[in-house]
Amino acid sequence: MTGPVRFEGRRERATAAVVGAGLDGFLVTPGPDLRYLTGYDPPPLERLTLLRLAPGSEPVLLVPRLERAAAQAAGGVAELEVATWADGDDPYVAAAALLRPGRWAVTDRTWAVHLLGFQSVSRDSSFVAAAAALPGLRAVKDADELEALARAGAAADAAFEAITARAFAGRTEEDVAAELADLLRANGHETVDFTIVASGPNAASPHHDASDRRIRPGEAVVLDFGGFVDGYGSDITRTVVVGESPEGFDRVYDVVRRAQQAAFETVRPGVTCAEVDRAARAVIDQAGFGPFFIHRTGHGIGLETHEDPYIVATNEAPLREGMTFSIEPGIYLDGRFGARIEDIVSVTSDGARRFNEAPRDLRLVD
Amino acid sequence: MTGPVRFEGRRERATAAVVGAGLDGFLVTPGPDLRYLTGYDPPPLERLTLLRLAPGSEPVLLVPRLERAAAQAAGGVAELEVATWADGDDPYVAAAALLRPGRWAVTDRTWAVHLLGFQSVSRDSSFVAAAAALPGLRAVKDADELEALARAGAAADAAFEAITARAFAGRTEEDVAAELADLLRANGHETVDFTIVASGPNAASPHHDASDRRIRPGEAVVLDFGGFVDGYGSDITRTVVVGESPEGFDRVYDVVRRAQQAAFETVRPGVTCAEVDRAARAVIDQAGFGPFFIHRTGHGIGLETHEDPYIVATNEAPLREGMTFSIEPGIYLDGRFGARIEDIVSVTSDGARRFNEAPRDLRLVD
Repeated sequence: MTGPVRFEGRRERATAAVVGAGLDGFLVTPGPDLRYLTGYDPPPLERLTLLRLAPGSEPVLLVPRLERAAAQAAGGVAELEVATWADGDDPYVAAAALLRPGRWAVTDRTWAVHLLGFQSVSRDSSFVAAAAALPGLRAVKDADELEALARAGAAADAAFEAITARAFAGRTEEDVAAELADLLRANGHETVDFTIVASGPNAASPHHDASDRRIRPGEAVVLDFGGFVDGYGSDITRTVVVGESPEGFDRVYDVVRRAQQAAFETVRPGVTCAEVDRAARAVIDQAGFGPFFIHRTGHGIGLETHEDPYIVATNEAPLREGMTFSIEPGIYLDGRFGARIEDIVSVTSDGARRFNEAPRDLRLVD
Repeated sequence: MTGPVRFEGRRERATAAVVGAGLDGFLVTPGPDLRYLTGYDPPPLERLTLLRLAPGSEPVLLVPRLERAAAQAAGGVAELEVATWADGDDPYVAAAALLRPGRWAVTDRTWAVHLLGFQSVSRDSSFVAAAAALPGLRAVKDADELEALARAGAAADAAFEAITARAFAGRTEEDVAAELADLLRANGHETVDFTIVASGPNAASPHHDASDRRIRPGEAVVLDFGGFVDGYGSDITRTVVVGESPEGFDRVYDVVRRAQQAAFETVRPGVTCAEVDRAARAVIDQAGFGPFFIHRTGHGIGLETHEDPYIVATNEAPLREGMTFSIEPGIYLDGRFGARIEDIVSVTSDGARRFNEAPRDLRLVD
């Protein structure tokens, strides 16, 4: 499938979803949705850039005048009608010309300043977030997207193997994090999104970043890192132990590992996101650590690191073949340690495939 | 001024501005405003993080439960009340408890999905963008901020000097852009925001990025690049010529240079943003190139590369001492070439100071 055809197909699918949701159109501003639908990926800025999809009308891309040439160079824009507005004009007046009164979906990430602009020029319209109105627009990946995610996963695995070949004891979390970033780049990541290195008690905060704390022997260290390969995300977590495990850690790690495996084995088309979450949670609850698994089991991944489908207790949406998401249960004991294991998986015709194959056995490092 | 006191002072100033604007409060989500007011800088994500400032109430920071520890580690959060919500809860129900009916400012960058959430749980409230309601909250910089911007400018200047010591002819734009990024990092930038390298006819698109086009002798090349040093932005543009100028270029360059100088000389407290824009535009109009200067003259810079004050014909706001912004007129001739010169400047007590001192004489490169 060539580029332009792919983007046209996606726009047709999105427009059909708009009709299915009883909406009058979809307003898309820069970010993953615009990139998905047009191949155009300008930075989100205060100047309004807007794709309007509306059933029965041709798609229109409204851009600042000085961005016209850059927009038209994008793979999926060539066959689009492009309208412009100039510095000093009111961009929302230009947008109003594209907005018939009705009910519109807007991309989740549209800046408030833009949404308020749409609301002010189209007072008879109502607006809903695409997350709620058009869930899963990008959730089912095509073959090329699955390949890109597989490459990203393999590159993250390679970074994990390389980092664990080096000593941890005595280094700061930030030092290990910087090396992880280098390793992600060396293994084909064009951008590094995050490199969490959480040692000892720091690992009890699931989103601890990396600090100047020195890693000591006898500590567990959570490594959670990822970035983008060919535009698609990687995201892997492994928990390693420096020399020997802290007291009580091995039991916790074993529970997390079994929870992760149980969730993985639950995945197949038709199973709900909530069921996958429940499978991980049941193992942790049964071991008595329920109160210490304080986050959802996972999140979709693709052009964004976090996107639909969310693997959370309240999401009764069924999985479909081609969806991709993380499975990442964890247990966090305040003041002591934390453990988390995360793989990216895809839903296959009869089960699931892992994009991360780095061993889940507890890894000892120096 | 120590960290916590600085953040408290900023919150007090913001709250006073809320009162002055006749608003009931200010809702701040992750991004530059949150960082400015709390020192807390989480990535903007689908999970709601929200600072509520409201006159007569203590500030409250609402965070996802798993981010509590990370939030409390930020410099300006220690003395704040922190509330949490857990995965599976409705974050907007948690936000509703902080929202008395009234008129609220929201940060410009708040995601639409969050603003729609606020609107759905607080139907008696109205919302306005901070850009409109609380303009210039971060526009006047303190001494530490001005120093950071000066360091960022000097680092960008150094990158320009280094790149022009190397040959351009025969290299691709992307190759030069990659080296520029390396040079920004080597000169103290912690992140690179953009590296525009626009050669020959590509330079007629002001926001052309960098392509695989090979740069040839006899072409002009626009270099527009920047990033962040200690959290504050750099942004410089210089236009260089490879070997010799294309026909007609020297005259255009001279006009741009005089326009940039005229705008610079206009800057002092009390002068309006529109007057600065007008000063640059008058020079270009007079030379007959008015239709080819297709963008505003500049934008504020600080924690963001583009922020208030915008130097545009419609902005009648007066400059105040300590404001910082770009002056970057340009002329773009379709199919031929483009020229732009950009410096970051600050408003002093009686004029302006440049943060970029790289020569504005036309630079010849190999």
